[in-house]
Amino acid sequence: MNKEQMTDAIVAAKTQLNLSWEKMGVDLNMSPVWLASACLGMNSAPAEKAAAISSYLGLGEEVTSALIAFPTKIWDQAVPTDPLIYRLYEVVGVYGETLKEVIQEKFGDGIMSAIDFSMEVDKIEDPKGDRVLLTLNGKFLPYKSW
Amino acid sequence: MNKEQMTDAIVAAKTQLNLSWEKMGVDLNMSPVWLASACLGMNSAPAEKAAAISSYLGLGEEVTSALIAFPTKIWDQAVPTDPLIYRLYEVVGVYGETLKEVIQEKFGDGIMSAIDFSMEVDKIEDPKGDRVLLTLNGKFLPYKSW
Amino acid sequence: MNKEQMTDAIVAAKTQLNLSWEKMGVDLNMSPVWLASACLGMNSAPAEKAAAISSYLGLGEEVTSALIAFPTKIWDQAVPTDPLIYRLYEVVGVYGETLKEVIQEKFGDGIMSAIDFSMEVDKIEDPKGDRVLLTLNGKFLPYKSW
Amino acid sequence: MNKEQMTDAIVAAKTQLNLSWEKMGVDLNMSPVWLASACLGMNSAPAEKAAAISSYLGLGEEVTSALIAFPTKIWDQAVPTDPLIYRLYEVVGVYGETLKEVIQEKFGDGIMSAIDFSMEVDKIEDPKGDRVLLTLNGKFLPYKSW
Amino acid sequence: MNKEQMTDAIVAAKTQLNLSWEKMGVDLNMSPVWLASACLGMNSAPAEKAAAISSYLGLGEEVTSALIAFPTKIWDQAVPTDPLIYRLYEVVGVYGETLKEVIQEKFGDGIMSAIDFSMEVDKIEDPKGDRVLLTLNGKFLPYKSW
Amino acid sequence: MNKEQMTDAIVAAKTQLNLSWEKMGVDLNMSPVWLASACLGMNSAPAEKAAAISSYLGLGEEVTSALIAFPTKIWDQAVPTDPLIYRLYEVVGVYGETLKEVIQEKFGDGIMSAIDFSMEVDKIEDPKGDRVLLTLNGKFLPYKSW
Amino acid sequence: MNKEQMTDAIVAAKTQLNLSWEKMGVDLNMSPVWLASACLGMNSAPAEKAAAISSYLGLGEEVTSALIAFPTKIWDQAVPTDPLIYRLYEVVGVYGETLKEVIQEKFGDGIMSAIDFSMEVDKIEDPKGDRVLLTLNGKFLPYKSW
Amino acid sequence: MNKEQMTDAIVAAKTQLNLSWEKMGVDLNMSPVWLASACLGMNSAPAEKAAAISSYLGLGEEVTSALIAFPTKIWDQAVPTDPLIYRLYEVVGVYGETLKEVIQEKFGDGIMSAIDFSMEVDKIEDPKGDRVLLTLNGKFLPYKSW
Amino acid sequence: MNKEQMTDAIVAAKTQLNLSWEKMGVDLNMSPVWLASACLGMNSAPAEKAAAISSYLGLGEEVTSALIAFPTKIWDQAVPTDPLIYRLYEVVGVYGETLKEVIQEKFGDGIMSAIDFSMEVDKIEDPKGDRVLLTLNGKFLPYKSW
Amino acid sequence: MNKEQMTDAIVAAKTQLNLSWEKMGVDLNMSPVWLASACLGMNSAPAEKAAAISSYLGLGEEVTSALIAFPTKIWDQAVPTDPLIYRLYEVVGVYGETLKEVIQEKFGDGIMSAIDFSMEVDKIEDPKGDRVLLTLNGKFLPYKSW
Repeated sequence: MNKEQMTDAIVAAKTQLNLSWEKMGVDLNMSPVWLASACLGMNSAPAEKAAAISSYLGLGEEVTSALIAFPTKIWDQAVPTDPLIYRLYEVVGVYGETLKEVIQEKFGDGIMSAIDFSMEVDKIEDPKGDRVLLTLNGKFLPYKSW
Repeated sequence: MNKEQMTDAIVAAKTQLNLSWEKMGVDLNMSPVWLASACLGMNSAPAEKAAAISSYLGLGEEVTSALIAFPTKIWDQAVPTDPLIYRLYEVVGVYGETLKEVIQEKFGDGIMSAIDFSMEVDKIEDPKGDRVLLTLNGKFLPYKSW
Repeated sequence: MNKEQMTDAIVAAKTQLNLSWEKMGVDLNMSPVWLASACLGMNSAPAEKAAAISSYLGLGEEVTSALIAFPTKIWDQAVPTDPLIYRLYEVVGVYGETLKEVIQEKFGDGIMSAIDFSMEVDKIEDPKGDRVLLTLNGKFLPYKSW
Repeated sequence: MNKEQMTDAIVAAKTQLNLSWEKMGVDLNMSPVWLASACLGMNSAPAEKAAAISSYLGLGEEVTSALIAFPTKIWDQAVPTDPLIYRLYEVVGVYGETLKEVIQEKFGDGIMSAIDFSMEVDKIEDPKGDRVLLTLNGKFLPYKSW
Repeated sequence: MNKEQMTDAIVAAKTQLNLSWEKMGVDLNMSPVWLASACLGMNSAPAEKAAAISSYLGLGEEVTSALIAFPTKIWDQAVPTDPLIYRLYEVVGVYGETLKEVIQEKFGDGIMSAIDFSMEVDKIEDPKGDRVLLTLNGKFLPYKSW
Repeated sequence: MNKEQMTDAIVAAKTQLNLSWEKMGVDLNMSPVWLASACLGMNSAPAEKAAAISSYLGLGEEVTSALIAFPTKIWDQAVPTDPLIYRLYEVVGVYGETLKEVIQEKFGDGIMSAIDFSMEVDKIEDPKGDRVLLTLNGKFLPYKSW
Repeated sequence: MNKEQMTDAIVAAKTQLNLSWEKMGVDLNMSPVWLASACLGMNSAPAEKAAAISSYLGLGEEVTSALIAFPTKIWDQAVPTDPLIYRLYEVVGVYGETLKEVIQEKFGDGIMSAIDFSMEVDKIEDPKGDRVLLTLNGKFLPYKSW
Repeated sequence: MNKEQMTDAIVAAKTQLNLSWEKMGVDLNMSPVWLASACLGMNSAPAEKAAAISSYLGLGEEVTSALIAFPTKIWDQAVPTDPLIYRLYEVVGVYGETLKEVIQEKFGDGIMSAIDFSMEVDKIEDPKGDRVLLTLNGKFLPYKSW
Repeated sequence: MNKEQMTDAIVAAKTQLNLSWEKMGVDLNMSPVWLASACLGMNSAPAEKAAAISSYLGLGEEVTSALIAFPTKIWDQAVPTDPLIYRLYEVVGVYGETLKEVIQEKFGDGIMSAIDFSMEVDKIEDPKGDRVLLTLNGKFLPYKSW
Repeated sequence: MNKEQMTDAIVAAKTQLNLSWEKMGVDLNMSPVWLASACLGMNSAPAEKAAAISSYLGLGEEVTSALIAFPTKIWDQAVPTDPLIYRLYEVVGVYGETLKEVIQEKFGDGIMSAIDFSMEVDKIEDPKGDRVLLTLNGKFLPYKSW
């Protein structure tokens, strides 16, 4: 079972059980963002988490193994077209140089890791229109000389 | 004075006065991220903020006018090469579909605005290596039918 | 049933019943442009509208569910080739900077939303050749400082 | 004097005289959108209109000649990055197939001309947020067989 | 029956009957170029012509309907690779600016329509090597001011 | 003197003398299309023609030499944006496969040369709108086996 | 039978009979390079050669017809990745301008035809490492004025 | 003196002295193709050859040093547009797979080196039109296992 | 059996037998990197090695033949997206010019072969985090003059 | 003084003093690869190393400051054309998937850092042709779940 078949199986079970990533995350004690990325095939799950996800959804060992497998992370669109994803791309384009200035002023020359990294999505209710709060948390990695 | 000349003048004054975006932000009561993006020419400043920035840096009206001008936001690299900026692009590529799932589950069909939007950078000190905390805060905009 | 299968089912029924988007829009009290975009899979339909469309076409719950699902909006051609669509792309290329000047002069720094947005197509009969009238109506979103 | 120098001269005079495209359009009895596109170098002006624009701004014959010259219409970004212009591009991407369906249903096989074409920008005041109204008006050109 | 299946059916019948586009055009009183483009799916045929083509080839109503359908004109290669087609692309690259100069000198600012357009292919026999004569005939469309 | 400087000198003289490519072609007994392409730097002129052009325009030996020089034919836009040139590109995209069918049916496997090639532009006056007639004349080159 | 199926059939027969392009070329009195290009579907074969190839390989009329058919020459990679083919591309990149200088110095303004063209591959044995000798032979085509 | 300035100096001297690459190659006992590529800046010259070239052209040590410098080989057009160079690119596209088949059949798995490589241009006079003979000679490099 | 089917068969057997590339390399006396590249279809195996691999995994002659076949090396992404592979691409981008400087200073003008080439992966255990050691070993190929 | 001016100053001094990166590295106790990358502007130098480099070359404080500045790492060619750099790109293309298999088998799911990273170039003398030894040493960064 490859990652795509795994995703189909998981999404079908999730729909059947009328679950949300939010509820699954709370019940399984995992972040909904990480959980969704593992189930969509963009991250591998440690063995015990993979087993917990499969069991929770009533799925078998094939799904567990597929969750454990190390994915090759591929995206087709260098510039994404879906408006929700494009807006994030636009933020990188508009604020990329700015973030480089501000982060490197605070931390020195280096980068924010996208590997030793986590991310959360929160909803801030607001009478003028609810707001999305994205929190990215990555280890700072300094360049080294040698 | 165009935006590039403005940025050169501001960065020269900032270096001369040995300032950081952080300190400028605190002293001027503006977010360092927004302040840097305005000074780098990727956002326009309201008139009173533009005047405050110029005055603080000992610069003249030409800089104030250039800060007020509405920028055309252009970036040359569809896929950025600088590692700090590329990692943000990579986050959009790896987690774009996941964020779409989780945000739309929480809010319905729509997007997070990149216009009615703010962003902050924080440093979390950690003995195993400091961490960068990026917080993105955008209004949710639902699609409408008509 | 995914969006493509949904579109096939809807178009087959529409052809069978000899309907036009125009007539469907009038009968269902929906804009023909929005209706067509939902049926082609580029917008999600609110539940009651989805049910109304399916029922009107004599189609079942699978179609209703597929109409409700939130689409991932993807287009393959960065520069479209079909002449009707290319002409619209050409208008954006030729008049993009002009529209930026005129809109921002009228409204301040900001954009026209493509989310809080509607569009209509009208026909103006003219002995020298009928004319297409496209009306785009989007909320103005001002940039904010923070 | 080439088109770029012409635009610089016109924009400098316009700023000096504290004019808007709107006011210039009203005073000169020309559409502000067309007027701006001619002054930005993306359309040629008929001789008498070119003379009227130059005279109104207190500019000389070189500007008149440059306004009359036939431009080569070039844009560098196949996918525009400025958010205001990108949103228009996004509308073409999201609604292109839909517009093809609706226009060709109404008019037969053919296109909306981008040459025999005009466009207007209006502001609709709205307590929930003003709205931009873009009106595109193009002659329908039917395909012919031979 | 979609356009691709239609083309397969037509080409199979044409091969079976040992016909050429030339002969078909003469017998059906249609231009061979237009006829071929309709049969290859790049133009729609008016109803009576579609019926005449199907009948001539001994094909049924499905082919007639497919010929009538309005095509979405798509080509995959921005720069074509087949040498015959590339040479035409090269002509546009080498002579594009020249044609703009000569056409606009003769007609004023505007374009040659590719919609109100026809094209013919002729063979000029020549002992030093036969020559291909391509004739393109398009309506001149002047830009308008407004 | 390189080709760009040559074109500037020629166009300045042509404007000064109030000439058209058409009149120059008639007076010099050269095709206006070829003449314009040589003057724009996309073709080299044989020595006697180069001398005749320079002399006619009152220009010197440097221009003659530059006209004789063999150009490197470069165009920057794989897909042209100017509408007049794009329409020609569109013709290649829409009719490329069709022309391949019709030409190779008439001539066998091979191509129309873009080197042993000439082209003319004519104006057909028409009360419903004048028409542009482009005639391309290229030697047929058959593929060979070996 | 299309060209791809033809190639599969030919390659299977060639493997079965333990043949090389070299031996086939010698036995059939055809150049191995041309023979391979025809069998891989990038050139059409004259009728008698097509029949000879099919007969030699014990294949039927369908293969003969497919060999005769005029191919559409398509390659997917603008920049090839396979190292053997990339090295040839690199030669064009590194030596393209040089070859233009040297060829046009020898022949005048014009090109080497890729249609009236043949190519051979030879092996030069050398104790320091065998060498590949590629010989390209194309008719010189001079540009013409008109 | 960088490579571009070197090329300008060499080409100016060559024009002044009315030389050809051919004559220079004969007089200097170097291949005209290699000589031209070194003078155009796409290959470095060994010290004694560099000195010989400079001395022959009456140029100084700066040119000698620039000829010796190791170039960074850059070309801007992934797909060349000049017809002479494009035809070579087309040969790689049309015959790339064929050459891979024929070379690897003769030599085993490996490539023809573009580094341990030479190339010549010859003219074959022919009453039906002279022919260009390009000879590429590269060392075969076998892949190794380890 | 093509290379993709071969890879599927090998990976299935490897999983079944619970093997690693490391262990297979040790047992078969082949480098794990080379072995993996041959099994993934990016290198051909000499006959005896191919037979040894198949036999070791309990696979048949079809796999042996497929391992021996010369691959066409194709990759789809000019810029890879998987983070592990992208980091290698980034190293080439960041350090490419540097490596050119340092290698050519040491060896003269030339390149490191990617054909007469081997590579190893080692693990350096480190309490602050294990390190990956990649060793690339390629023959230096000097440019030649001729 | 920006990074480009810094590089020009450093390379001029290095040439003047007849130094190599190798000798500079030994004398300054820095790796030649890192040293060259800092001097070419692709890495920042810690303050004391920057001072040591400037002092060693007899350059002033402006160079020291420019060496300390944090660079924006930009490369223009997604696919490099210089053969030495292209071969490294080819290695990533041919062996990228293989390295992913072998590294992740040894270390688990994660990447080799290009930030906490060093690289060396060595020369292995060999009578059959010297060999380049590139050693890349990067910290392994495991993906984390959260």
